[in-house]
Amino acid sequence: MAASDKTLDDLFVDMLKDVYSAEKQILAALGKMTKMPDSEKLALAFDTHRAETEGQIERLEQIFASVGKPPQGKTCAAMQGILQEANEMAEEFKGSDALDAGIIASAQAIEHYEITRYGTLKSWALELGMQDAARLLERNLQEEKKTDQLLTKMAEERINARAA
Amino acid sequence: MAASDKTLDDLFVDMLKDVYSAEKQILAALGKMTKMPDSEKLALAFDTHRAETEGQIERLEQIFASVGKPPQGKTCAAMQGILQEANEMAEEFKGSDALDAGIIASAQAIEHYEITRYGTLKSWALELGMQDAARLLERNLQEEKKTDQLLTKMAEERINARAA
Repeated sequence: MAASDKTLDDLFVDMLKDVYSAEKQILAALGKMTKMPDSEKLALAFDTHRAETEGQIERLEQIFASVGKPPQGKTCAAMQGILQEANEMAEEFKGSDALDAGIIASAQAIEHYEITRYGTLKSWALELGMQDAARLLERNLQEEKKTDQLLTKMAEERINARAA
Repeated sequence: MAASDKTLDDLFVDMLKDVYSAEKQILAALGKMTKMPDSEKLALAFDTHRAETEGQIERLEQIFASVGKPPQGKTCAAMQGILQEANEMAEEFKGSDALDAGIIASAQAIEHYEITRYGTLKSWALELGMQDAARLLERNLQEEKKTDQLLTKMAEERINARAA
């Protein structure tokens, strides 16, 4: 027998709170990030992702409701660190040719954090027999992966445009 | 003309410092993480990754030397946040059946951060014509991806063992 009565259900709820806090922080940051890049296409991508993020937050709230827990109570320190670095970079490279490269890199760090957390949460939801939650988490996961791929494509386009 | 004389070279060095700080933090954390899990196999994986991390830090130091910059000067706030969350989880779930699931999730968050940073750095190294640096970064990237895949496999084995 384990020396603690904590279960995978508790861990699932803790992680759900973590990613909920991360998404809320990202939503607030995206308002600012939309105004940052030189590339209009990149700004538009952030605007699209802002709408997506609102939908992702709603899905997380559905999962909280299904487990009877309030969607709050934990600040995601990892996302705080990632966004702090993104802000410092944007401040330092404002007005430089390298700004958009830095912004794309920051956005990809954000996406990768969400990808790993949604991957974990989905796998735990399945283990816990929460099929509906797993389906909602899978939708968020796929959106984040698609955004990451779009960012990689934009990074390549930027390199090609500079080389031309 | 851009309003700032900052270049992609500057951004590359900043990001190199960031990931160097991250790896140093991870190396320190791995000493502790090796003692945490219930699963001996997981503990052994952390031990192996500790040796790998030492090699990765050496490769980063080679790149610093090639650009004539000291390997220091920037603390990675993102990794601080990721490790803070990992420590809080380990403290809270110590002695519980869910501990190893949480440890694997923490380790995968660490790996995903490194994967996105090495992917970005490698692409910038190629853009800057730094073939040797790109090769070293690719080696680190592949090691992190392999570690992430191993962790996914261990998470699946854990689920199968519990179901049996």
